[in-house]
Amino acid sequence: MRHKLLLLTNKNERYRNLLKSCHLPDIEILDDDTQNISQADIWLAEPALAAPLLPHAKEMLWMQSTLAGVDALVSPRQRKDYQLTNVRGIFGPLMSEYLFGYLLAHQREHYKYRSQQEKKIWQPGNFKTLQGQHLLLLGTGNIAKHLAQTAKHFGMYVTGINRGAKPTRGFDHVDTLSNLTKYLPQADAIASILPSTPETRGALNAQTLSLIRPEGILFNLGRGDVLDLDALYFQLKNNTKQNAILDVFNQEPLPQNHPIWILDNVIITPHIAAPSFPEQVVEIFATNYHKHIKGEQLSHEVNFERGY
Amino acid sequence: MRHKLLLLTNKNERYRNLLKSCHLPDIEILDDDTQNISQADIWLAEPALAAPLLPHAKEMLWMQSTLAGVDALVSPRQRKDYQLTNVRGIFGPLMSEYLFGYLLAHQREHYKYRSQQEKKIWQPGNFKTLQGQHLLLLGTGNIAKHLAQTAKHFGMYVTGINRGAKPTRGFDHVDTLSNLTKYLPQADAIASILPSTPETRGALNAQTLSLIRPEGILFNLGRGDVLDLDALYFQLKNNTKQNAILDVFNQEPLPQNHPIWILDNVIITPHIAAPSFPEQVVEIFATNYHKHIKGEQLSHEVNFERGY
Repeated sequence: MRHKLLLLTNKNERYRNLLKSCHLPDIEILDDDTQNISQADIWLAEPALAAPLLPHAKEMLWMQSTLAGVDALVSPRQRKDYQLTNVRGIFGPLMSEYLFGYLLAHQREHYKYRSQQEKKIWQPGNFKTLQGQHLLLLGTGNIAKHLAQTAKHFGMYVTGINRGAKPTRGFDHVDTLSNLTKYLPQADAIASILPSTPETRGALNAQTLSLIRPEGILFNLGRGDVLDLDALYFQLKNNTKQNAILDVFNQEPLPQNHPIWILDNVIITPHIAAPSFPEQVVEIFATNYHKHIKGEQLSHEVNFERGY
Repeated sequence: MRHKLLLLTNKNERYRNLLKSCHLPDIEILDDDTQNISQADIWLAEPALAAPLLPHAKEMLWMQSTLAGVDALVSPRQRKDYQLTNVRGIFGPLMSEYLFGYLLAHQREHYKYRSQQEKKIWQPGNFKTLQGQHLLLLGTGNIAKHLAQTAKHFGMYVTGINRGAKPTRGFDHVDTLSNLTKYLPQADAIASILPSTPETRGALNAQTLSLIRPEGILFNLGRGDVLDLDALYFQLKNNTKQNAILDVFNQEPLPQNHPIWILDNVIITPHIAAPSFPEQVVEIFATNYHKHIKGEQLSHEVNFERGY
């Protein structure tokens, strides 16, 4: 059987070239033409681009998402009569660079020493180290596991939060999201890598955010809607020694008129913590394609009920 | 025998309290009085404070340095008729925080995203990662070993430079200082943790610095005189995509009139990468004191010939 592949990404040309160099058997990469939507049996797609076209997908049996976040495709009213796979396992090291880059910059006071340098001031300050600090990771999946490993290398104590408080290798301690309020006051640094699901949405809200330590630092690296951004704005405006490093937002780009843009104790980056590189996505796609044509179980299959 | 301990530090009161809480046997901590210099048989001292007083040290048999760098004490004309120990093994994790904090800040472009945030610009850039980058470490001792371990965790390739090209665990490759010119053009990042010895002084000079890659980044974390700072100034003034992160200087504080203070591609910090904490120094001293009274071999003994 000859398979028909539809590309639905912002980098179709790049994907087309990478796929050609893979020499996958029995596959035809369709042109970017709307009528191909109904004919393709395989989609390689960004969830937000694919979601509105799902009703027209007459032949589609398998969709490989180019991203980790597939919440646009798993809401209750969407079709679920196909196999959906996402990309995993490639983000841990990149996310680790982001989290520990900013965490070290904060604890080792890059900003202060930069300001001193501008005034030619030589003045060592009180020293802070990650050693012995407590990192609270919301999430214990692949990415969180890698972050925990980096944290242990830097001598931190790591608590993980997951659905069932299932003990997870690499964490000092694990508990459930329902016990989050117990850990927020203890943590020096908190990082959410949670997916967007009915349970996680709004988990970081006015009430829970109010429990963060006076000098705590919060990272949101997973999905924007896990965090109530307006609540965080008020929290940080009133607690100027708390900090937040935000890479994901409910609405991206973050609207220009959101007041959080200009808080001194907030760093905003444009969803750059752990990008999907087409090279890595195509590698995952090619592996899955070989499994697909042999009728084997695909890797990184999304559970529609669970939502990730 | 009752031992007499002289404290020669900028934090004598702090050391005195910490030492008291150790309840070391048969030891008297002398007052800060010049006549005690001739009576003390043990010194706990900062090398720069101890060096000019050495001729008056009539009874001193053992000196525990509060710092790692002991070059003030090992120059050819100094006395060498006593045991000198320094502090080691405590700086790796702190140095790692410093090196990787600044390296990640550079590669993941903290400064650019901060500027964008100030203008409320949402614009992901070309992505750079430490994965696959080449780190050249000048030094393969305890600190360098820890840095190599962190670098491997971040997926880097690590070359170490030491005296005899002795293969060292944790490094992908090791060579001698005489082959430095071979590796400088290959490295994405270079960090010197070298001690100050006749061989290492000026190893990073106008000629060797000119071999650094167009976008290379150089760290000096060991001793100031390993690097010709004026040569580096000219190198970086003319190669604005190269960067340097400097924590140690020949003259500290770095004089206000040195032009390198104001280069955009240089970060200057006031010798904060890996401070000696009195708590850790006292722990090392106490362990060595027990060995000393039993006549055992002391830990972290400095070899006067080698110079570290």
